[in-house]
Amino acid sequence: MRIGLLFQPRIKASEAHARRVQERLEGRSVDAWCDSSWTVTEHSQALEGSDLVITFGGDGTLLRAARAAAPFGAACVGVNYGRLGFLTEFDPDEFDAQLDRVVDGGSWLEERVLLDWTHHANGVESTAGLAAADVVVGRGRIARVVEIEVRINGVVLTTYMADGVIVATPTGTTGYVQAANGPVLHPEVRDLVINPIVPFLTPSNAIVVGHDVRVELFVYTTHEATLSIDGQTDHLVASGDKIVCQASEHVARFARFRERDYFYATLAEKLRWRVPRDMPRPIPDSG
Amino acid sequence: MRIGLLFQPRIKASEAHARRVQERLEGRSVDAWCDSSWTVTEHSQALEGSDLVITFGGDGTLLRAARAAAPFGAACVGVNYGRLGFLTEFDPDEFDAQLDRVVDGGSWLEERVLLDWTHHANGVESTAGLAAADVVVGRGRIARVVEIEVRINGVVLTTYMADGVIVATPTGTTGYVQAANGPVLHPEVRDLVINPIVPFLTPSNAIVVGHDVRVELFVYTTHEATLSIDGQTDHLVASGDKIVCQASEHVARFARFRERDYFYATLAEKLRWRVPRDMPRPIPDSG
Amino acid sequence: MRIGLLFQPRIKASEAHARRVQERLEGRSVDAWCDSSWTVTEHSQALEGSDLVITFGGDGTLLRAARAAAPFGAACVGVNYGRLGFLTEFDPDEFDAQLDRVVDGGSWLEERVLLDWTHHANGVESTAGLAAADVVVGRGRIARVVEIEVRINGVVLTTYMADGVIVATPTGTTGYVQAANGPVLHPEVRDLVINPIVPFLTPSNAIVVGHDVRVELFVYTTHEATLSIDGQTDHLVASGDKIVCQASEHVARFARFRERDYFYATLAEKLRWRVPRDMPRPIPDSG
Amino acid sequence: MRIGLLFQPRIKASEAHARRVQERLEGRSVDAWCDSSWTVTEHSQALEGSDLVITFGGDGTLLRAARAAAPFGAACVGVNYGRLGFLTEFDPDEFDAQLDRVVDGGSWLEERVLLDWTHHANGVESTAGLAAADVVVGRGRIARVVEIEVRINGVVLTTYMADGVIVATPTGTTGYVQAANGPVLHPEVRDLVINPIVPFLTPSNAIVVGHDVRVELFVYTTHEATLSIDGQTDHLVASGDKIVCQASEHVARFARFRERDYFYATLAEKLRWRVPRDMPRPIPDSG
Repeated sequence: MRIGLLFQPRIKASEAHARRVQERLEGRSVDAWCDSSWTVTEHSQALEGSDLVITFGGDGTLLRAARAAAPFGAACVGVNYGRLGFLTEFDPDEFDAQLDRVVDGGSWLEERVLLDWTHHANGVESTAGLAAADVVVGRGRIARVVEIEVRINGVVLTTYMADGVIVATPTGTTGYVQAANGPVLHPEVRDLVINPIVPFLTPSNAIVVGHDVRVELFVYTTHEATLSIDGQTDHLVASGDKIVCQASEHVARFARFRERDYFYATLAEKLRWRVPRDMPRPIPDSG
Repeated sequence: MRIGLLFQPRIKASEAHARRVQERLEGRSVDAWCDSSWTVTEHSQALEGSDLVITFGGDGTLLRAARAAAPFGAACVGVNYGRLGFLTEFDPDEFDAQLDRVVDGGSWLEERVLLDWTHHANGVESTAGLAAADVVVGRGRIARVVEIEVRINGVVLTTYMADGVIVATPTGTTGYVQAANGPVLHPEVRDLVINPIVPFLTPSNAIVVGHDVRVELFVYTTHEATLSIDGQTDHLVASGDKIVCQASEHVARFARFRERDYFYATLAEKLRWRVPRDMPRPIPDSG
Repeated sequence: MRIGLLFQPRIKASEAHARRVQERLEGRSVDAWCDSSWTVTEHSQALEGSDLVITFGGDGTLLRAARAAAPFGAACVGVNYGRLGFLTEFDPDEFDAQLDRVVDGGSWLEERVLLDWTHHANGVESTAGLAAADVVVGRGRIARVVEIEVRINGVVLTTYMADGVIVATPTGTTGYVQAANGPVLHPEVRDLVINPIVPFLTPSNAIVVGHDVRVELFVYTTHEATLSIDGQTDHLVASGDKIVCQASEHVARFARFRERDYFYATLAEKLRWRVPRDMPRPIPDSG
Repeated sequence: MRIGLLFQPRIKASEAHARRVQERLEGRSVDAWCDSSWTVTEHSQALEGSDLVITFGGDGTLLRAARAAAPFGAACVGVNYGRLGFLTEFDPDEFDAQLDRVVDGGSWLEERVLLDWTHHANGVESTAGLAAADVVVGRGRIARVVEIEVRINGVVLTTYMADGVIVATPTGTTGYVQAANGPVLHPEVRDLVINPIVPFLTPSNAIVVGHDVRVELFVYTTHEATLSIDGQTDHLVASGDKIVCQASEHVARFARFRERDYFYATLAEKLRWRVPRDMPRPIPDSG
């Protein structure tokens, strides 16, 4: 068995934890490798033979691992050293007691849609990659709207004058999409979301499209525009460039140790979907 | 071949049109029956043998036909005597020239998810039925919030203090859901939407859940509450009642004569998703 | 000195508390009268000579008192027996210790805008009154949009197809307006807010107008419509009726014992405007 | 009499028009000066003695002139060479016939609130200026939230995790604030608006505060942040910097030739507040 351990290089405790776990795993004769999550893309070979990748960081660290591991089929699980830890499975202080369970299985596998994106500049494909949460095309440093024409399967939906447009997987909907008034999609839903960011004069409703749809974003601006992947990597975009998104053949695999319907409870607890506890029921008359 | 013709009884021209079409069809030896859309539920026998139902009315008339025809498998097509006619296929003045095409085929079949709903009062099922667009549980006449606890597959999501909660099919998302800031789902998406109406202190984001999910709404109020189906039929709901929704085994079938990707163009034209035409591109500098 | 004590008749503890306070005040030779808040409008004579009205109930009880007391200039202060108690000044268990301070002064006076509203049916004024929080014109029991043409100083703004329209004072903005995505106005702002409720195809932005503006709402519906005042009293409205709102010459007077800038802190605490406490700063890198 | 003429240097036709008007004015012995709007801040002396500034450009050109002219009391009027021209008074082809009226008076003066802003870096004031529409503090090029603590008169409102925060005058509310779901304030309202941009986990409602309020924004980020004034000038902001806004002693003066209640009609026409014309009334039954 082979397990990768990835830590967030800016959080000292996450690296220490990962190193400790590496020792424990090696003591159990598990082949464990450990490195910064920021260099994960250089570890194709290690990932190829790995059964599991454990991240010590926030949701961002886990998304980074999920993108890298997807082509090799390795499952990922997160120990939360971040803020919300919406996607992670364990708190740091409960993880060590769970390590045997993590290694021996006892989890179920949650598969989530990934996005393939390509950036076309001057008519040719300039960059391409995977996104686990969202592809955001929008304004650069200058706080001025850009224009983004959205085509779905070649049909023009509209041209947004906006801060940007998000194309998201269900994983992305509890992040930027939720803040942008968009819908939250259950992780097992296979559809994609297109959600404008602060659009001027057009409806701000998200649109949910089927799994097999091709979304094209044509950018027009007199200033700079950017393409952001999972809120992590950024690329400059020029006026006239095109970004194309569609569901990937790869999927993100998360090893889950909680019950299958954990998602709604997590929404309620971590994203404030539950009303404050001291609200009695039924509502007393208001006057 | 057998065709049903349903008109909107409040719109005289729609009945006249339906009667004219009935004559033309009988002249072609098609077995055509004609009646008010409001009595369609009394026509089970007629629907059972029908290949097609043509409605002369608005989107509401078509939804009414779709609900009634679904258990019998008949396809529906709408001639627009309503306002937006978002779901209808033909304008009144273009329909007659298209009649041969409608009768002889040349359409493709769009299948859309329907909802089964049941109203439980005092612990027992009191009413049940189909919804083509949405099930809305909310306040009655008095403009005061009700409390609605939402459970998905038995797991509590949250308790809304709100005007109400919408459970919608993709068909319903271009109506009330869109007005309530919710997402628009492409007609071929099979998921369901849960969308609060003017919620107080909880997030207003919609949640999109998978096709096989069971949604329960528990209502608490010191006043009256109501259950509305497709914005057409209404039932009084008492505090403590439960409404259960899930995707039906039946589907709505719409005969479509436009191209397969008509949906995005219709959104843009009828629901104002396109910016006014006189906007030049790219944006001139704003100062 | 004369003080009125109003309790919420559905909450037993609120009546008991009011009676106890009445005895204590009488022991101090203060002329104290006590009754249900629901009958406050029958107490004009008592209100006329009162310096202060203390309510034992929720925000609704306090709004009810504020409307009734406004024409007579009496200040109001609330002891919270409701849920949020956003407008109230004291919790029940802290009030008794504060009674001397309440009676002897030591408060500052917060004056808030009130609305005059009139309902015109068949071209004649049928009812009129004061609102402390909001005037809501909207659909009745049936969950179907009504049309409401809004004119400001005689100029048409738009015709909403919506669940309704709210005309609110700043006091109303932390209630229904906030839920309807509207702005929160500081209590000392003198402007009014017009906010649509779930509008279809028109912008949902609120509009904030000056203090001296006349707002007319013309209602069109094929079903029933209602007029609600402060979420408490309801009147049936017929298609073609008009409701007129403008700032009243009277103001609501609240005796405040907290510091002058209490409002922002109260928003943060009671209306969830503050992020959960366990969020560290600055944001760790997300990946 | 002295009149300034400012054109948008990127729009050739605007300069040509300004030059033609300069000649006509000189033919009438009016002292007319003409230059690019981009250099207006270098014309203090010319502005000081000017009675009127006419801009040939879009809303941005007019805002630029309004900021520069405010300290000298000159009124501004716009000829629309932009896109929406929401703030401008004349279309290019109607202006020449109106020139006499513009010069001879016949207008009324609309005074609008301006904002004073100061940027404090490392504890000292680094830059300061006027804003006619809005002060936006937010993320830079990288599409990642920043944290902005908002204090009003020294009291903490909340800490937004968001793309940014807008502090706007009523003039700014028909622009970025409207897109960000905020309220539209009538131009003669004197209050200010604080509106978050895509906030995560906190309410997105705008807050409307009184004219005499001091708003402080404290920025925390691990990346870059920016300060934008009227969507035109941008400044880099470092983590820990503070931006302070309050209503200015100066006001923007617009010469208006339309009727006093023009604002609502302009909203309806230019910002899509009116429903499409072909909607009959009242609503036909929906089914």
